[in-house]
Amino acid sequence: MKIRNFLSKQTVFINDQIKKFIPAGIPEKLFKAMEYSLSAGGKRIRPILVIESAKAVGKEDINDIIDIAVATEFIHTYSLIHDDLPAMDDDDLRRGKPTCHKVFGDAIAILAGDGLQGYAYEIISNNNKVKPEILLKVIKILSNGTGVYGMVAGQAADILHEKENSFNDIDFIHLHKTAKFIQSCCMIGGILGEATEDEIKILEIYGRNIGLAFQIQDDILDEIGDEKKLGKKTKKDREKNKLTYPSVYGLEESKKIAKEYIDEAVKEIKKLKNPDILIEIAEFIINREV
Amino acid sequence: MKIRNFLSKQTVFINDQIKKFIPAGIPEKLFKAMEYSLSAGGKRIRPILVIESAKAVGKEDINDIIDIAVATEFIHTYSLIHDDLPAMDDDDLRRGKPTCHKVFGDAIAILAGDGLQGYAYEIISNNNKVKPEILLKVIKILSNGTGVYGMVAGQAADILHEKENSFNDIDFIHLHKTAKFIQSCCMIGGILGEATEDEIKILEIYGRNIGLAFQIQDDILDEIGDEKKLGKKTKKDREKNKLTYPSVYGLEESKKIAKEYIDEAVKEIKKLKNPDILIEIAEFIINREV
Repeated sequence: MKIRNFLSKQTVFINDQIKKFIPAGIPEKLFKAMEYSLSAGGKRIRPILVIESAKAVGKEDINDIIDIAVATEFIHTYSLIHDDLPAMDDDDLRRGKPTCHKVFGDAIAILAGDGLQGYAYEIISNNNKVKPEILLKVIKILSNGTGVYGMVAGQAADILHEKENSFNDIDFIHLHKTAKFIQSCCMIGGILGEATEDEIKILEIYGRNIGLAFQIQDDILDEIGDEKKLGKKTKKDREKNKLTYPSVYGLEESKKIAKEYIDEAVKEIKKLKNPDILIEIAEFIINREV
Repeated sequence: MKIRNFLSKQTVFINDQIKKFIPAGIPEKLFKAMEYSLSAGGKRIRPILVIESAKAVGKEDINDIIDIAVATEFIHTYSLIHDDLPAMDDDDLRRGKPTCHKVFGDAIAILAGDGLQGYAYEIISNNNKVKPEILLKVIKILSNGTGVYGMVAGQAADILHEKENSFNDIDFIHLHKTAKFIQSCCMIGGILGEATEDEIKILEIYGRNIGLAFQIQDDILDEIGDEKKLGKKTKKDREKNKLTYPSVYGLEESKKIAKEYIDEAVKEIKKLKNPDILIEIAEFIINREV
């Protein structure tokens, strides 16, 4: 499949770029923990969306925004490290490798996560090619999508359901835990491509819809995915009392809803100048096996 | 003492301001955890330093920078919440009250800390009175002082000594864990006051020196402070195998070194236009009992 090859190449490219930004000259074990988790693989879908969204609104040279794309993966990696902690989801494996705290201990894992979050903002504020007012908008969108009004709220809601059944709104969880961050990445790409407000709105709707579908597909893969390919145990969500789409709507209905989100995203993104890659990414999201 | 009254008033002012910035409309328990830790008191020395440093370089109207001062306290509060976690320093009391994780559980405490860090950058990027290029510099200085090259590195070094004796440079720990953040607050004030590069350099030296003295005084208070006034147990550092100034240099020598840092800070800050308050703050730092 063409898009898979394209995404594989982009993933390799992002992986190479990430290496250049791992902070050095800090206590060895902290460095190793960050390097370990940043190098653990993954689809790198967030930085890819930043870059492809910028291209979709007509940006040709992406060299000045690679660091910003990388910064989104730093935030994503911080969230995974903290999410895996014993006090949170208590996961031993991530992408087929022991989780950060299993290798480096809980304290260093907490600090590696804290460091990665802060360093994302340090990277962005150190970009001296993009105009300051644009970088500031990027920071605004990123902090909003991943912070207390975004991802952190979603994680809290997720944990509150899991541990004490005190939160029951699955759409709030999916929107905040996953979709808002993905939506932010698309909007950031648009902002970096100096898109019009209308274009950014299109990217926002596209991003939210693929983000929601992404999380439903994650839920589905936890039910029926291949453990080897995923690099982690499946059926863990059920075991953990997680609120998932299959648990609420059943498997077939979940697939149908995910498809509707993707259709909506595709319909919207077609309004842009160069939507082709983003259309293919949207379709890939519900066809992926990892 | 005049400076104590001044600082008390400023603390009340900052406390009132903090209330306005606590994020609402998010999962209740996450909100409560952030509110709880943000309202737990404290000297608010970091936001005060932002404001007083701005004034010291001639800024008269501080209304447009209060949110940025508040943001520094959000970062400080996140670091305290994470520092108190069982996996880290495992503290049950902070300022006389149960620590965040004791009240809300470890998972919500981790997320409250994560949320506060991100929200600091969200607050700064939402300020629409200060010029974007200045706000971007603020973010650069703040993320550097509190991130992997600053506070997070210091916390990691501190924990690595405490838990596995694998880090032994007390000056690295003090500089990174405490001084770099305080230094950043002074520089941020200067930047917000549109200071010259020379003036910012003065604030940098001042901030580093009072920051180093601040941490030594913290170490001293852990040895000989009043538990009631401090709101926490003393002699915990020794119990925990923490690397402290009194443990390395003895109590009297530690006091002498702290005094030398303050003298250096005062000498430096006198070069500014309006240094009086900053001089008094410097002297307060080694005379404080909490």
